Amino acid sequence: MNTFGRIFKINIFGESHGNSVGIVIDGCPAGINICENDFATDLLRRKSGAFGTTPRIEPDKPVFLSGIFNSKTTGNPITIIFENTNTKSSDYNFTDFPRPGHADFVAQKKYFENSDLRGGGHFSGRLTLGLVTAGVIAKKIIDFVKINAKLSEVCGSEDIQTAIKNAIEEGDSVGGIISCTAKNIPAGWGEPFFDSVESLISHAIFAIPGIKGIEFGSGFDSAKKLGSQLNDLFIDENGKTETNFAGGINGGITNGNEITFKVAVKPTSSISKEQITFNFKTKKLETLKIQGRHDACIAVRAVPVVEAVTAIVLADLFLLRKTQEK
Amino acid sequence: MNTFGRIFKINIFGESHGNSVGIVIDGCPAGINICENDFATDLLRRKSGAFGTTPRIEPDKPVFLSGIFNSKTTGNPITIIFENTNTKSSDYNFTDFPRPGHADFVAQKKYFENSDLRGGGHFSGRLTLGLVTAGVIAKKIIDFVKINAKLSEVCGSEDIQTAIKNAIEEGDSVGGIISCTAKNIPAGWGEPFFDSVESLISHAIFAIPGIKGIEFGSGFDSAKKLGSQLNDLFIDENGKTETNFAGGINGGITNGNEITFKVAVKPTSSISKEQITFNFKTKKLETLKIQGRHDACIAVRAVPVVEAVTAIVLADLFLLRKTQEK
Amino acid sequence: MNTFGRIFKINIFGESHGNSVGIVIDGCPAGINICENDFATDLLRRKSGAFGTTPRIEPDKPVFLSGIFNSKTTGNPITIIFENTNTKSSDYNFTDFPRPGHADFVAQKKYFENSDLRGGGHFSGRLTLGLVTAGVIAKKIIDFVKINAKLSEVCGSEDIQTAIKNAIEEGDSVGGIISCTAKNIPAGWGEPFFDSVESLISHAIFAIPGIKGIEFGSGFDSAKKLGSQLNDLFIDENGKTETNFAGGINGGITNGNEITFKVAVKPTSSISKEQITFNFKTKKLETLKIQGRHDACIAVRAVPVVEAVTAIVLADLFLLRKTQEK
Amino acid sequence: MNTFGRIFKINIFGESHGNSVGIVIDGCPAGINICENDFATDLLRRKSGAFGTTPRIEPDKPVFLSGIFNSKTTGNPITIIFENTNTKSSDYNFTDFPRPGHADFVAQKKYFENSDLRGGGHFSGRLTLGLVTAGVIAKKIIDFVKINAKLSEVCGSEDIQTAIKNAIEEGDSVGGIISCTAKNIPAGWGEPFFDSVESLISHAIFAIPGIKGIEFGSGFDSAKKLGSQLNDLFIDENGKTETNFAGGINGGITNGNEITFKVAVKPTSSISKEQITFNFKTKKLETLKIQGRHDACIAVRAVPVVEAVTAIVLADLFLLRKTQEK
Repeated sequence: MNTFGRIFKINIFGESHGNSVGIVIDGCPAGINICENDFATDLLRRKSGAFGTTPRIEPDKPVFLSGIFNSKTTGNPITIIFENTNTKSSDYNFTDFPRPGHADFVAQKKYFENSDLRGGGHFSGRLTLGLVTAGVIAKKIIDFVKINAKLSEVCGSEDIQTAIKNAIEEGDSVGGIISCTAKNIPAGWGEPFFDSVESLISHAIFAIPGIKGIEFGSGFDSAKKLGSQLNDLFIDENGKTETNFAGGINGGITNGNEITFKVAVKPTSSISKEQITFNFKTKKLETLKIQGRHDACIAVRAVPVVEAVTAIVLADLFLLRKTQEK
Repeated sequence: MNTFGRIFKINIFGESHGNSVGIVIDGCPAGINICENDFATDLLRRKSGAFGTTPRIEPDKPVFLSGIFNSKTTGNPITIIFENTNTKSSDYNFTDFPRPGHADFVAQKKYFENSDLRGGGHFSGRLTLGLVTAGVIAKKIIDFVKINAKLSEVCGSEDIQTAIKNAIEEGDSVGGIISCTAKNIPAGWGEPFFDSVESLISHAIFAIPGIKGIEFGSGFDSAKKLGSQLNDLFIDENGKTETNFAGGINGGITNGNEITFKVAVKPTSSISKEQITFNFKTKKLETLKIQGRHDACIAVRAVPVVEAVTAIVLADLFLLRKTQEK
Repeated sequence: MNTFGRIFKINIFGESHGNSVGIVIDGCPAGINICENDFATDLLRRKSGAFGTTPRIEPDKPVFLSGIFNSKTTGNPITIIFENTNTKSSDYNFTDFPRPGHADFVAQKKYFENSDLRGGGHFSGRLTLGLVTAGVIAKKIIDFVKINAKLSEVCGSEDIQTAIKNAIEEGDSVGGIISCTAKNIPAGWGEPFFDSVESLISHAIFAIPGIKGIEFGSGFDSAKKLGSQLNDLFIDENGKTETNFAGGINGGITNGNEITFKVAVKPTSSISKEQITFNFKTKKLETLKIQGRHDACIAVRAVPVVEAVTAIVLADLFLLRKTQEK
Repeated sequence: MNTFGRIFKINIFGESHGNSVGIVIDGCPAGINICENDFATDLLRRKSGAFGTTPRIEPDKPVFLSGIFNSKTTGNPITIIFENTNTKSSDYNFTDFPRPGHADFVAQKKYFENSDLRGGGHFSGRLTLGLVTAGVIAKKIIDFVKINAKLSEVCGSEDIQTAIKNAIEEGDSVGGIISCTAKNIPAGWGEPFFDSVESLISHAIFAIPGIKGIEFGSGFDSAKKLGSQLNDLFIDENGKTETNFAGGINGGITNGNEITFKVAVKPTSSISKEQITFNFKTKKLETLKIQGRHDACIAVRAVPVVEAVTAIVLADLFLLRKTQEK
């Protein structure tokens, strides 16, 4: 239930305030060069501390437990962990007074009150460290593909800095839109139905905390258009199209044009502003004020995670594709 | 690659102009009452012939090959097929002159020119017959859940009839928005990351031909809002919330409130209007005029399919949930 | 639960006296030549009617429902069924008076009395038709591999004809040993632990009704030997070994030498001889005399099935291997 | 490829001389009591140091990385590692001069010479630590089932001590037979074909290094018998049978009687005795003398591993069974 992928298969684990968080990557071919430094850029992009992000500073140093030898993948499962060092479990009791918009309440229900809720527990955004790590390796497998995600809009505005600044001043948080493209993918990846490229990418994208929507190519705008406006006309024998309303995917299969999609990231639920919500202990509506400082715009840090899971899906599709080729 | 689900597992097969299309359903508990008539309503909703749909009329009669005995499921794999009778394979050569927006081109690439492209082959919307069928059985497994999908908008307008009528007159096609809700689901279904409820539903939804976007709860609108506007405040000890911007899902897990999501359906690619596109045989841009009559608004027929795949996901989550309960 | 394989994935369905039995094969590459006649030899080897087998004669004609076009695989799911025509459901009530050694009793328990027990229902050896069919296609995928199974012993004797003849005369049945070899497999297929070649082959072999044991290479005899007697010494740079006690597999991985294994097939449980067993209706021990004629030696017909499932496993390993190669 | 199980799902990783070996267990229900001490007995049974086993002494202390909180399972993935401390990588070059019977040669082929072969690398018996650990947790899930494995025979003799002593004196190694039983399992677990109880148990058993055969109930002896000798006659309304030649399984499904099976463990390939084998560097047959001390009888340590994987399979079947019950 915590695994994803068919060949390049990942399994994430850990809790925010437990021993560590990490990932096992199975099915990665042998002989890929890997050193600790390879992870630095993407881990830094994901790291807290940037404008609009939480100041919990963890070293985020990947520790290789298995599957890497002489700076190469061995072909055996790769396990990478990140130790949790900067964990101050607050006195705040998530169980009795669950935070609105958080997983506190559902975690209690799902795990019959056995959850480790400290710092969000297994639901913590910290688990995405594993995703970013796997993404770095996935990108090496499909090094001919160029994946690029960026934050294109925050709170409905393209003036991202100002929008975040305003939210911070209000003790509030803001959502945003991440746009992602993937270039140089040959035609023929993906499957007609359940393993359509859209199915697989959306499956992985919605594994990222805080995502509420995804659209491929012209997406929701497609619903407002006529077929004659949206059909991407072919212009050469490689299948290049004049427009790319389809976002590079037809019938679930890559068509050789750029894959494009956008995802909606909601504002993080942790806000300093007071909220009136049900206290499950006193059984009354009470004022909740969440202490500490929080990510004002989680979308900032989600950007490299979006890239990472896209790389994970595409690496798996690349490996799967080999099984069908002569 | 054509399977979906972990316990309630489905496998669709068939080509539009081949012998038949169908589905195998594995993991369905024994003892569920099933008769042919149970499928009538949803198959009828999906059927062509309605306003805005193609006039290819198939009897769409389910033939039970296995897994049903004495009008009950036996617990063994259920196989249901629909014979293809009304197949007039046109002379039109999809291989040489692939239709823009269709899977003709990618099918050639993916299957190294071995595809049966007649009538769209395996990519045909006809394959959704199996999905609707499995959905009917899934609904019986979770008969306490009420799933409801409806076409809420066509071509950006809520005057659906007029929008479709205009498209038909122009020999064009229109997209639409389908809204879906699912009620009476207890808190605690789904998983924190890869098998989040959003991941699973979106995976299944994007298996439906023509879907280009999905959003849960306030979806893309979330990206424009502040956290203080979007947090659903708890109002009672059952976890009922005042608002439902989360669409009934927190941290990937159902929270007991109604699940809500919307999907964007693009206009069908088959239009009567002339299109200038690349002819792969002559290696020139040429005018393509697709013969025959087509669905002007495929979204009409997608409604019961959206409901069906939602039921399939939820039935699987319901069965999985049992494994974690005492 | 009725599926097997990771890339070349099969799904069998059907009941002995239902509409039909069949198989869906997913993940088979496009472009493989297939015609009805390809199945004739192996289906004939499996067919009843030979010495020591039941006289239920079915035409065993494969009907292609999907995935084959112009006598080639299309790359889409291949569905092949065999209609049940020669079904005479006896008046014998398996529910009340379950046959010793049969699945009658467990089927009732497992499916909460909803099973179609006629003719053995889903537990019927008739389901192996699908396995043989998939095996024929698998063999084409790995056409460089030579798989050979043969019945090497019946009832402890190598005089197979006499042993069977004696059993028939007594209204009894006999077990046997099937030996199987697979040649020309390169080193490097399989995985170290859960997907060891032995794990996968044994998994598939025990799916065949009536199998009670499997051993690879020197098998159970290994347990009686010293290491110095069993180590296969390398004799050339291709890894060829002087002996082959390992049966072509080290550490779960093929080593380039011939794969060898033996399976034990029990005597079929259906015998004409009277048996005193519990009648679940009268709640007394009573004499059961099973009517009709039966396979005296099911091992005869299991030979092509053993070959088929071996081919299925090896084809899947071959396709998986491609994902790890440069 | 390094995962096993459908609900109770395990994923082992690590190399003998790497950072650590370990396991991730997914799908384990929340609320199961776990403390470090629970693992002591089975880890001790598996530990080296006993008569006939290698003297590499590792502390074998389980370190909990995730999924356990307040001495209970949280319902999230459980990760447990064992640090490698006592690793003396010899100068012996497995690559050039692969040990007969070992995975040295196949590892090179499979991983294109990227394997970490030190101490057997990922193929090391040390990986079974994870299996034993998961087995302890699995046993807690099915605490009503009693699983018991024992070494019943070594080198064809039931005088186990003497047989091992002789082998040690000769610098040789010996194989053995492990007998395993599982009691108190209700009728109805398992599936008719691919997920037959025999399929699943054998799949897991052959994941243990050194296993060459498995037989259920009367196993290979069945092949020498008549049906009238082997049918287990029912004697009461619970399905209890007079004999248990079937080993508690009919048609792949548990029948309520005791599950019984035997596995053949080969002698460990590492022996002090000189062997003449191919040197891949010099390209000549040369004398190989493996240094160090080794397990003379690996079967001794395999006993708790056999129990563990049996528990893992049965726990998974137990959880799966819940999905089919009302």
